[in-house]
Amino acid sequence: MSRVAAEVEAALEDLLPLTEGAERRVIEAMRYGCLGGGKRMRAFLVMEGARLFNVDRRCAARVGAALEMVHAYSLVHDDLPAMDDDDLRRGKPSCHKAFDEATAILAGDALQTRAFEVLAEADTHSNPEARCELVAALALAAGARGMVGGQMIDMVAEGQVLTAEEITRLQALKTGRLIQFGAEAGAILGRAGPAQRHALAAYGRDLGAAFQIADDVLDQEGTAAELGKTAGKDLAAGKATMVSVLGVARARAQAEMLAAQAARHLESFGAKAGLLRELAAYVVTRRN
Amino acid sequence: MSRVAAEVEAALEDLLPLTEGAERRVIEAMRYGCLGGGKRMRAFLVMEGARLFNVDRRCAARVGAALEMVHAYSLVHDDLPAMDDDDLRRGKPSCHKAFDEATAILAGDALQTRAFEVLAEADTHSNPEARCELVAALALAAGARGMVGGQMIDMVAEGQVLTAEEITRLQALKTGRLIQFGAEAGAILGRAGPAQRHALAAYGRDLGAAFQIADDVLDQEGTAAELGKTAGKDLAAGKATMVSVLGVARARAQAEMLAAQAARHLESFGAKAGLLRELAAYVVTRRN
Repeated sequence: MSRVAAEVEAALEDLLPLTEGAERRVIEAMRYGCLGGGKRMRAFLVMEGARLFNVDRRCAARVGAALEMVHAYSLVHDDLPAMDDDDLRRGKPSCHKAFDEATAILAGDALQTRAFEVLAEADTHSNPEARCELVAALALAAGARGMVGGQMIDMVAEGQVLTAEEITRLQALKTGRLIQFGAEAGAILGRAGPAQRHALAAYGRDLGAAFQIADDVLDQEGTAAELGKTAGKDLAAGKATMVSVLGVARARAQAEMLAAQAARHLESFGAKAGLLRELAAYVVTRRN
Repeated sequence: MSRVAAEVEAALEDLLPLTEGAERRVIEAMRYGCLGGGKRMRAFLVMEGARLFNVDRRCAARVGAALEMVHAYSLVHDDLPAMDDDDLRRGKPSCHKAFDEATAILAGDALQTRAFEVLAEADTHSNPEARCELVAALALAAGARGMVGGQMIDMVAEGQVLTAEEITRLQALKTGRLIQFGAEAGAILGRAGPAQRHALAAYGRDLGAAFQIADDVLDQEGTAAELGKTAGKDLAAGKATMVSVLGVARARAQAEMLAAQAARHLESFGAKAGLLRELAAYVVTRRN
């Protein structure tokens, strides 16, 4: 993962060059929100998925970087005072604290724009049909019926008691869809057949669900120093999570079951999918 | 223009269907920010540009609708308290007043996402190369080196004295680039040659500049009832415009000069570009 993180960091550096002029400030804020942080799990999914189909590594890194830009934009906007109002992100002041609210809004907006630009750009090695499909798939995952829809449900539901089913749907939209896109992107780039693409999508769905439950366990058990963000905030905000419904022990068991199920979707890929299998085990054992 | 406005309205209705579930609220806010308002000048440019190359009208309407979504997203975010803090838009409460700030942030985000999804979607009649090129061109016009960059410059420059050249650059980015995209989109869809595409781009640049200066004159001279938005707000905010630098009379003369120049770029298209020529004359004589 650290090798991929370095490659994606280099791609992001390359794709977000600083310029002169007064618009420089928004590019600085985009870089602040996007560079130098995170495990790059989403990009790792793209890179490892693409490797199954022998996709050019530099091309996959750019698609991974685009996905990380969308993830970063969602964090920048999520942290805003009108949203989750969080001052800490990846162990640093969140974007609107380091800059200001207006700049953080614009930086998030422009990170999203840049992500789609990168996917559509002609200098990738993939064909235009694949690039169009990537844009459409990422938009579906990120939009009102995906990540943004999940954030809306999360806000509407604040303080309400949700069932395990409702929480599962909320989290599938809010964090799951983007992770699923990461798992599928390599198949889109590699023009894989429907069976292989569906196997990776199913892997991404289960991995995303396992990841989110594990994240909720960490939110309750971890410290801010381990997490690099405010700990216990979902609980404090009265947000329903699998931990609040099932308790820590059963939630952890559920995450482990989902991670094992995720790995089983990869059987047809053999040894080449080894790192994707390891990732599934990792997301439920990590401490940050 | 009203015929095109109706067609684009129908396309937007079609592209933003309401759904059930708690995410419905963000779709309602997207529709609120996007439907039932505006002259749809940007979509008109797309439709009339596309007509020059005999592009399927329904396909052009969808591209025009996508451009209007990006325009609407920028207005929803611009009106936020942390940005221009404006309560009135198109004669109605702005999105964050009708809903709330968090919903307006998410709705703007999702409108941008949906715009790129619409451009990339496979059911348009255009080829994938053209769809990719549209995504990349719209992203370039909307991003940190386009509209968002212009908004950043505008905020950084607030209260400062700018030269006419600096204002021209600011406005070319902030409102010009999206208008230029509208003028060029038909040529991209119609796979036009570089000479025709450049002619339309030059028309769009001059039209956008004329439009913005005329808008600044209206902002100073119009009433809120005529404008459907708060009048005199740029002046009150200490924002530099061509009116504050040149005065009303010279600013108006400058806008008329640019509109005439815009129309001249269309000479090679003959009578078929008649409505685009009329639009150039209209933007400098309109009262709202």
